[in-house]
Amino acid sequence: MSRLLQDAVSELSKLPGIGRRTALRLAMHLLRTDSQAVLDMTEAINRFRTQIKHCSKCNNLSDTDVCPICDDNTRDNSTICVVEQVADLMSIENTRQYRGLYHVLGGVISPMQGIAPSDLKIEMLIDRIEQGGVKEVILAISTSVEGETTLFYIMNRLRNYPQLKVTNIARGIGFGDELEYVDELTITHALMNRREIE
Amino acid sequence: MSRLLQDAVSELSKLPGIGRRTALRLAMHLLRTDSQAVLDMTEAINRFRTQIKHCSKCNNLSDTDVCPICDDNTRDNSTICVVEQVADLMSIENTRQYRGLYHVLGGVISPMQGIAPSDLKIEMLIDRIEQGGVKEVILAISTSVEGETTLFYIMNRLRNYPQLKVTNIARGIGFGDELEYVDELTITHALMNRREIE
Repeated sequence: MSRLLQDAVSELSKLPGIGRRTALRLAMHLLRTDSQAVLDMTEAINRFRTQIKHCSKCNNLSDTDVCPICDDNTRDNSTICVVEQVADLMSIENTRQYRGLYHVLGGVISPMQGIAPSDLKIEMLIDRIEQGGVKEVILAISTSVEGETTLFYIMNRLRNYPQLKVTNIARGIGFGDELEYVDELTITHALMNRREIE
Repeated sequence: MSRLLQDAVSELSKLPGIGRRTALRLAMHLLRTDSQAVLDMTEAINRFRTQIKHCSKCNNLSDTDVCPICDDNTRDNSTICVVEQVADLMSIENTRQYRGLYHVLGGVISPMQGIAPSDLKIEMLIDRIEQGGVKEVILAISTSVEGETTLFYIMNRLRNYPQLKVTNIARGIGFGDELEYVDELTITHALMNRREIE
């Protein structure tokens, strides 16, 4: 097998979810693609990898020292929504319903994977609260075991600020979900937290 | 959203089978990867795209003008196995059972996709046969409508060489396949082509 092809395939198959067969298919696709377009792609990847910054306020990915969300003075800076990762922030932004700020933890506490609270941007969050002006912290963290651990850890840390309102995003049956396929824990929670129809 | 991230995601999502969500996941993975490793990956891709050649004899991908298979004088150069694409050649090579040469067509005849016989390396195959020394041509082409069209087209062209043995790879039930899940055409074919147990 060609050394050049072998190298390209072995590099591509280092990507998560991409096996050798998919990597080979990708390589064949690249061969049919204009070489300038391939160069544009690899340059965009390297630019992203070397030039991207983390927002010094909220830890969001940013081209600048402070991200456009933190920099936007039309947003409500008294509310901080805490998320695990940038992708979660983007999902919330896509709803166009939330006008507060964010705080990106950069993961969840996971003793199994060796991720301690100090590996996450929790102190950075506490610092923001210490600076004053924050009225509400919304915890939008996943319901996995690691997520719940992280949630309780942060809730514990926030007990020192009794004026602060700490909320959790609502859990329940998603719109369009069929009850038949929803897990028991979610149904139990949705039943217990039922609301009177007004 | 960060321009750098947006560019990387939009470039990655141009790859086949990679949507925006997967592209974002890949970008996040790259961010956790050492930047030198990312550079190594992109360099391998560009090297592959710009430096790879097609073997001047069999159209296999090659680092050199003639591929190592065509260049290997321990192989039987009287037999040519015709395949659609390089991936098929690699699958056959992986069996380590075939010691002849190959001919990579570079696709199949597809009027729907505007691929005519002249877009494939069929003339190149005829030229090889014209040069003499070829005793058998094995057609290892897929059984799709386009594959069968290609098969018949090549078989017709090879009628001009009555001394040439033209064979087709055997179709039947794959090892490990459960009869219950095999399509009717394959079962019909496997029944009609049943062999006496020796």
